[in-house]
Amino acid sequence: MNDLHFIRTTSANGVVEREFTLGELHGMLWSPAGVESAPLVLLGHGGGRDSKAAPMVGRAQRLVAAGFHAAALDAPGHGTRPRTALDDEQVAAMQEAMATGVPVGPIVVPYNRHLAELAVPEWRATLDVLEKLPEIDGPVGYFGLNMGTAIGVPLTAADPRIAAAVFGIFWYDDALAEHARRITVPVEFALQWDDQHIPRDSGLALFDAFGSAEKSLHANAGAHKEVPRFEVDSMVRFFGRHLH
Amino acid sequence: MNDLHFIRTTSANGVVEREFTLGELHGMLWSPAGVESAPLVLLGHGGGRDSKAAPMVGRAQRLVAAGFHAAALDAPGHGTRPRTALDDEQVAAMQEAMATGVPVGPIVVPYNRHLAELAVPEWRATLDVLEKLPEIDGPVGYFGLNMGTAIGVPLTAADPRIAAAVFGIFWYDDALAEHARRITVPVEFALQWDDQHIPRDSGLALFDAFGSAEKSLHANAGAHKEVPRFEVDSMVRFFGRHLH
Repeated sequence: MNDLHFIRTTSANGVVEREFTLGELHGMLWSPAGVESAPLVLLGHGGGRDSKAAPMVGRAQRLVAAGFHAAALDAPGHGTRPRTALDDEQVAAMQEAMATGVPVGPIVVPYNRHLAELAVPEWRATLDVLEKLPEIDGPVGYFGLNMGTAIGVPLTAADPRIAAAVFGIFWYDDALAEHARRITVPVEFALQWDDQHIPRDSGLALFDAFGSAEKSLHANAGAHKEVPRFEVDSMVRFFGRHLH
Repeated sequence: MNDLHFIRTTSANGVVEREFTLGELHGMLWSPAGVESAPLVLLGHGGGRDSKAAPMVGRAQRLVAAGFHAAALDAPGHGTRPRTALDDEQVAAMQEAMATGVPVGPIVVPYNRHLAELAVPEWRATLDVLEKLPEIDGPVGYFGLNMGTAIGVPLTAADPRIAAAVFGIFWYDDALAEHARRITVPVEFALQWDDQHIPRDSGLALFDAFGSAEKSLHANAGAHKEVPRFEVDSMVRFFGRHLH
């Protein structure tokens, strides 16, 4: 097993931010300064972004303020990680679909399914080492929209350490729904009511697939990228109910 | 115009509770003790209940703690108000439908539409006098599920003083949707994903009808009466964003 290396540590406003590597993996860990023991929330970034992207930092700061650790991990082909010929081909196909107004779901869904197959064991290996840190303790949460849902749903279905999860802004797909049906932990799910890329019925069908007795859909008026900021507060409170 | 009479005042834990009459109307007003000026949220109760019902008191206490006044009003045929032959007939029909497993929506929807026609001018007259109280100031909110939505949607469409509203747990109906389309203030809407009385598509269609640029659907797993308690917190925060 590879060793966890903290390659950079900064501390500001009560948040300790550590950049880490684990073999070929690369990610970020945010922690409340001076807290002896707190639960961890895993943050899955969206397509084309990485563990240092502004939404990750913003969510991490809110989670740390609420007494959690937060960790993000660069997905395969993202951030500083190498891109394969398949990555380049799929990104080009998505960009062309966006530019020409062709539905992008039929490209994103299988490509993200492929990335999830690579990313799930990477996340589990990362969790194996993070949970050994003395300051990390308690049940684990997962929080990822867009591609973060494509990866997080099979991860949460596979890993019994994850006790609550926030997903959303993704298409229904039989393979993904099969993972969702195996999830029984509490789920909060975001959907954009006027999403120009994801048909409303597709998002509703994915929410419906979760096997969880406690699941909440938050559907907001607006387009694909217009998830309201107050939803992040809601998600932090969701983890407060289930992980503290 | 009739005069507002406070017929009983009690005060406990920072909440001043006043029972009032206004002509033949009867209701409750809850206020934060010692606050000079605060916005008002109107509370619409569910069918078969009244202004003193436990959910009204619970919501009022949360709203007062968040710095609001809250007022509830007995709907026609509810609480201490006289029941007409039509009321008796409709209540009996609903009870029979429930007992025999026949869909209750086709009875509830037109009956509540009838009650709303009576209740909307009553609420507006009540608001006319309440807003003259020196301690009530600022934009007005409305919060009502079930029958509280059947009454609140036409009320909010008709009264420009209402600046934000929480609705939910009700059926789509063309006449109600016509009112909803005229509403443009922010709306939060609750729906039970496994409602045994309200078909999922019916609730989703009613949410879809609102003309508001800012609207949020909160759909939770569970049956008709199982709206989670944390939704009340969410609704109080919603008013905090829009009325403070």
